[in-house]
Amino acid sequence: MTKGRIKDIANILKLGHIEFRTTDLKRAREFYVDLIGLHETARDDDRVYLRCSEDRQHHTFVLRQAETAGLGHIGFRVSSEEDLDRMKARFEELGLPVRWAGNEMLGQGRTLRVRDPLGFTIDYYATIDSVPWLVQHYHLHKGASPTRIDHVNVLTPDAQKGYDWYTQELGFGCAEYTESEPPEPRIWASWLFRKATVHDIAVMTGQGPAAHHVGFSLPEPLAIIRACDMLAGAGYADSLERGPARHGISNALFVYVRDPDGNRFELYTGDYLTGDTSAEPIRWSLNNPVRQTFWGAPPPRRWFEESMAVESFDGATNQPTEPPLLPPVPNYVLD
Amino acid sequence: MTKGRIKDIANILKLGHIEFRTTDLKRAREFYVDLIGLHETARDDDRVYLRCSEDRQHHTFVLRQAETAGLGHIGFRVSSEEDLDRMKARFEELGLPVRWAGNEMLGQGRTLRVRDPLGFTIDYYATIDSVPWLVQHYHLHKGASPTRIDHVNVLTPDAQKGYDWYTQELGFGCAEYTESEPPEPRIWASWLFRKATVHDIAVMTGQGPAAHHVGFSLPEPLAIIRACDMLAGAGYADSLERGPARHGISNALFVYVRDPDGNRFELYTGDYLTGDTSAEPIRWSLNNPVRQTFWGAPPPRRWFEESMAVESFDGATNQPTEPPLLPPVPNYVLD
Amino acid sequence: MTKGRIKDIANILKLGHIEFRTTDLKRAREFYVDLIGLHETARDDDRVYLRCSEDRQHHTFVLRQAETAGLGHIGFRVSSEEDLDRMKARFEELGLPVRWAGNEMLGQGRTLRVRDPLGFTIDYYATIDSVPWLVQHYHLHKGASPTRIDHVNVLTPDAQKGYDWYTQELGFGCAEYTESEPPEPRIWASWLFRKATVHDIAVMTGQGPAAHHVGFSLPEPLAIIRACDMLAGAGYADSLERGPARHGISNALFVYVRDPDGNRFELYTGDYLTGDTSAEPIRWSLNNPVRQTFWGAPPPRRWFEESMAVESFDGATNQPTEPPLLPPVPNYVLD
Amino acid sequence: MTKGRIKDIANILKLGHIEFRTTDLKRAREFYVDLIGLHETARDDDRVYLRCSEDRQHHTFVLRQAETAGLGHIGFRVSSEEDLDRMKARFEELGLPVRWAGNEMLGQGRTLRVRDPLGFTIDYYATIDSVPWLVQHYHLHKGASPTRIDHVNVLTPDAQKGYDWYTQELGFGCAEYTESEPPEPRIWASWLFRKATVHDIAVMTGQGPAAHHVGFSLPEPLAIIRACDMLAGAGYADSLERGPARHGISNALFVYVRDPDGNRFELYTGDYLTGDTSAEPIRWSLNNPVRQTFWGAPPPRRWFEESMAVESFDGATNQPTEPPLLPPVPNYVLD
Repeated sequence: MTKGRIKDIANILKLGHIEFRTTDLKRAREFYVDLIGLHETARDDDRVYLRCSEDRQHHTFVLRQAETAGLGHIGFRVSSEEDLDRMKARFEELGLPVRWAGNEMLGQGRTLRVRDPLGFTIDYYATIDSVPWLVQHYHLHKGASPTRIDHVNVLTPDAQKGYDWYTQELGFGCAEYTESEPPEPRIWASWLFRKATVHDIAVMTGQGPAAHHVGFSLPEPLAIIRACDMLAGAGYADSLERGPARHGISNALFVYVRDPDGNRFELYTGDYLTGDTSAEPIRWSLNNPVRQTFWGAPPPRRWFEESMAVESFDGATNQPTEPPLLPPVPNYVLD
Repeated sequence: MTKGRIKDIANILKLGHIEFRTTDLKRAREFYVDLIGLHETARDDDRVYLRCSEDRQHHTFVLRQAETAGLGHIGFRVSSEEDLDRMKARFEELGLPVRWAGNEMLGQGRTLRVRDPLGFTIDYYATIDSVPWLVQHYHLHKGASPTRIDHVNVLTPDAQKGYDWYTQELGFGCAEYTESEPPEPRIWASWLFRKATVHDIAVMTGQGPAAHHVGFSLPEPLAIIRACDMLAGAGYADSLERGPARHGISNALFVYVRDPDGNRFELYTGDYLTGDTSAEPIRWSLNNPVRQTFWGAPPPRRWFEESMAVESFDGATNQPTEPPLLPPVPNYVLD
Repeated sequence: MTKGRIKDIANILKLGHIEFRTTDLKRAREFYVDLIGLHETARDDDRVYLRCSEDRQHHTFVLRQAETAGLGHIGFRVSSEEDLDRMKARFEELGLPVRWAGNEMLGQGRTLRVRDPLGFTIDYYATIDSVPWLVQHYHLHKGASPTRIDHVNVLTPDAQKGYDWYTQELGFGCAEYTESEPPEPRIWASWLFRKATVHDIAVMTGQGPAAHHVGFSLPEPLAIIRACDMLAGAGYADSLERGPARHGISNALFVYVRDPDGNRFELYTGDYLTGDTSAEPIRWSLNNPVRQTFWGAPPPRRWFEESMAVESFDGATNQPTEPPLLPPVPNYVLD
Repeated sequence: MTKGRIKDIANILKLGHIEFRTTDLKRAREFYVDLIGLHETARDDDRVYLRCSEDRQHHTFVLRQAETAGLGHIGFRVSSEEDLDRMKARFEELGLPVRWAGNEMLGQGRTLRVRDPLGFTIDYYATIDSVPWLVQHYHLHKGASPTRIDHVNVLTPDAQKGYDWYTQELGFGCAEYTESEPPEPRIWASWLFRKATVHDIAVMTGQGPAAHHVGFSLPEPLAIIRACDMLAGAGYADSLERGPARHGISNALFVYVRDPDGNRFELYTGDYLTGDTSAEPIRWSLNNPVRQTFWGAPPPRRWFEESMAVESFDGATNQPTEPPLLPPVPNYVLD
């Protein structure tokens, strides 16, 4: 017998970390540490554990040596160990694959690993080692100098279902959403938060499960320009996939980058505080281009059509994907 | 019989608004609208109601025509009307002066007005009119272009008592605090939050009750420089009391400004997200100058010694003040 | 008998002003003053005279009511009245149409008007009224807030010939140039200066004579982002034709904008000091895309294919144009 | 028999380089390279040769191991070798100590070394090795990332005489000047240029000959803030002597820093283009505080009272100094 939905029995605090798969751990480490400016906390045989300047936890972004590129798993922090126990019971009740993850992640406490209904592997944990805060170690900041991991953006065939899972079961707030056209509007994408920003996770319509990108928060808008300059100076101009431009949704100034493995991340700044759950979410129509681009060059097709594979729950392969229920590309990109 | 402390019976969302008293409403309006870049929502005979670009509520900063300058009152938003009813009972139980405030504030819903144990008049309300969001109306942004009201900073003779009230009774988190020197360390100041930033209110040791300043959040660091340029261009260079510099506490880049009435506000940017209540607050020693000034010119004495009078609960006069229990000025300012 | 080439008998100081033709003077004035942030010095029946914050001269950008949009004329400042007399003799010797322009331009002194060998109408003058310097009137700065007119960029069928005219006859320095491919490299474009920046004029290969754009210098890089925000906020997102991005040539961070008439200007910042005439010009190959775009989205075809008509010397019509001798579009744009 | 004044027989292009004396070459190198972001071109037993990102010449700033800190010498570039020969004759005619400097400076061509009438050792040279331009090597930029050496600021007992020397003999333009009070106004300080910025050298009243500071140009205003952050992060907050603030003169946003030897430099950005020699210089009254500080904290006394010793012409000792003819500190600093 359950005590209720996750939102009533546990308190998810925020996106905790993201694990990217890389086929060349050394190259990936150099890219993210030397150019992007993430800080290395630790490494072991398979992984490099990174964090941003504002993070006080052991890792918020992890690189793992693997056969192929893509997304490993997503981690969320919760309030307490007891939350984890209650969540395990609830996930079992829902028939989801769930287990206590071993000690494989350095610095991370007891971890509940589940395959969520969208097909993603999710880690939940309450404790993680504290590490020195680097906000005021400005002489160690370099590159784009991200302040924190901000969000992950995922693709799923039925984004309405994804929205329902996150809001009704897990208790996420919705800052903004995109709806398909009448006569039968459905949620095409939603920006969902636990921490008081626009999102910890965005769930978009697409062939999935797949990951679209991870977003790092930059300290101020000029850091976007500096990141472009520095990446171009280092020979990565072609890795700047989209932007700089400003989103209508979230109001963020952004640039999307493909790392040397082809994994995608967003350098992101200028969204707004949320957390007032009584605020009405902002609604956007799918075919309104301002939604995607408040100003700036239109997104290239590959930004819509390419995504990152997601590791299967047993880690042995990639999750099989299914086609989207709604068109995955707005009509303004089609011609 | 009570249902418990406020923190157990109500949910304070965030600092809602601040009311400043001005002896020349027209001049004050021109200063804050034309130079600082606040947006006017409404005005009536006595008041001008202002908001920042990110605010979706009717007002977050109010100017009121009065005989003398100073602080009128402080407003906090709570989650629900029921919160207000429960809070009223609790305040009555504690013997605090409390009443339903009339309809005097345009746009503001049912309002519980209380004189808190520190001697400040506080408005609590759950509803306030929604107004258009101006974040993306960039062509209307001007001056320093604040994004939101960030915090109020107050002086009280016993800051330890203020800390206890806000954390133990009202449920505020503490991001950072300053402690007096051993052998008997006491809290000399604390930065206390409900929204997920460093503070909604800071409570500092001083002759009080008095208000030190109101803080407006700016969108990015260059806006601090632009604000200085623009104020100096308009003839207000002498009104820049302190800064630009960076605080150790909060990590904010800041400049303090005295408005034409002598009321003080801070233009503030670059603090960090809080909200993870399991994070340890950052402790600072009173006589560590980095606390005040991570870098920049030392604060002038008047920044420590001058403050704003606080209106009495009946609005007829100013609250009488009492001297601080601890020294109100760190030793590094004394020589 | 001549005293020699212009470069030996006169001292051209810098680009003085540009005149744009507009079909709606009121609308154009509102656009450039209210949104872009140019400052109005004067107006008469046909023209609005504008300047930038750093300009101490009566006008550097002029809007003129006309039947069609396009470029009126280009003005350069020279050192002395005597320069003008010597230049007139030289232009006559070269058989160029030349005359003393009447008092039609407010504030502008004695003006020598010539149709240059490329087919453009050029004003040369030594004196122009001084006006208050607005650099430190920061409270009057708004919009993109250009600091000065930086350059004009023109199209001509034979850019090698244009280069020769400007360097060998007029004495311009060359900061950078683009060369067509071997086996017979010719100059495809050149960036030519009298003032100590990358250019006062760029001469590019294209159907011409025509004007590609006018460049305004912005005070710092974030002003580019603010200009995009403000233009998008005011409904002009679609007028942002290209950028923000950074040029390889000139190193400038830029955005190109089409005004309500379709005339094109560039907001431009981040080039470098020149003036050391012993420095070797930087050579770029035509088909090297870094030349155009150090980073950023590729230029749209219309950026290459659309230009502004140029008024005939008698002002009665537009100059007839001729096709370019070299391909006007690099091969990386063709597919 | 002379051929005339320097201004008629030679063309000084710009400030070429500055040599600072340091008592700990290794420490000084680490400070300027790792924190300030200068780029090392070469080093020999006694010197480290540095340049900024925009410099194409072998060195613009040199550190030399010495017994005491202070200024070694000042270098200016001229147009041609023939200029040097004519200058030598003129200096000899004027009775100034002058000689061909040996090959002691790596990368620097034939060098004319003179002790100027103000008591400073000045190098003039026409050639210096070209080195790769680092403007677009953004991945190598770090720290404050200066774009170029901008100016040197010196103290001399009779600043009117210094002004006369630089303008009437050497042909410098004057962008701005400070005059002492009536009834007998004399030039108290002047900002003098050859390159088209506000100054290559400023000559101020003071005990001298002495050097006040060297100015490095930063690429944009936020770099000033980043430099403060980074210096404070590295433990050098107390080395920030004055600023960030904006000068009235030059309009520059600045911060003054004392290096580990106590030598002073300025990080400087936001001045304006000059080069139009017909423009009237801007006049400031000595006791107008806006001159020094358009906005910002007032300068500390030590900023006025401390300076850098200047090496004697034979390099064996420091130049003896004499007291100023006019008061060296404005009256607004005296109380």
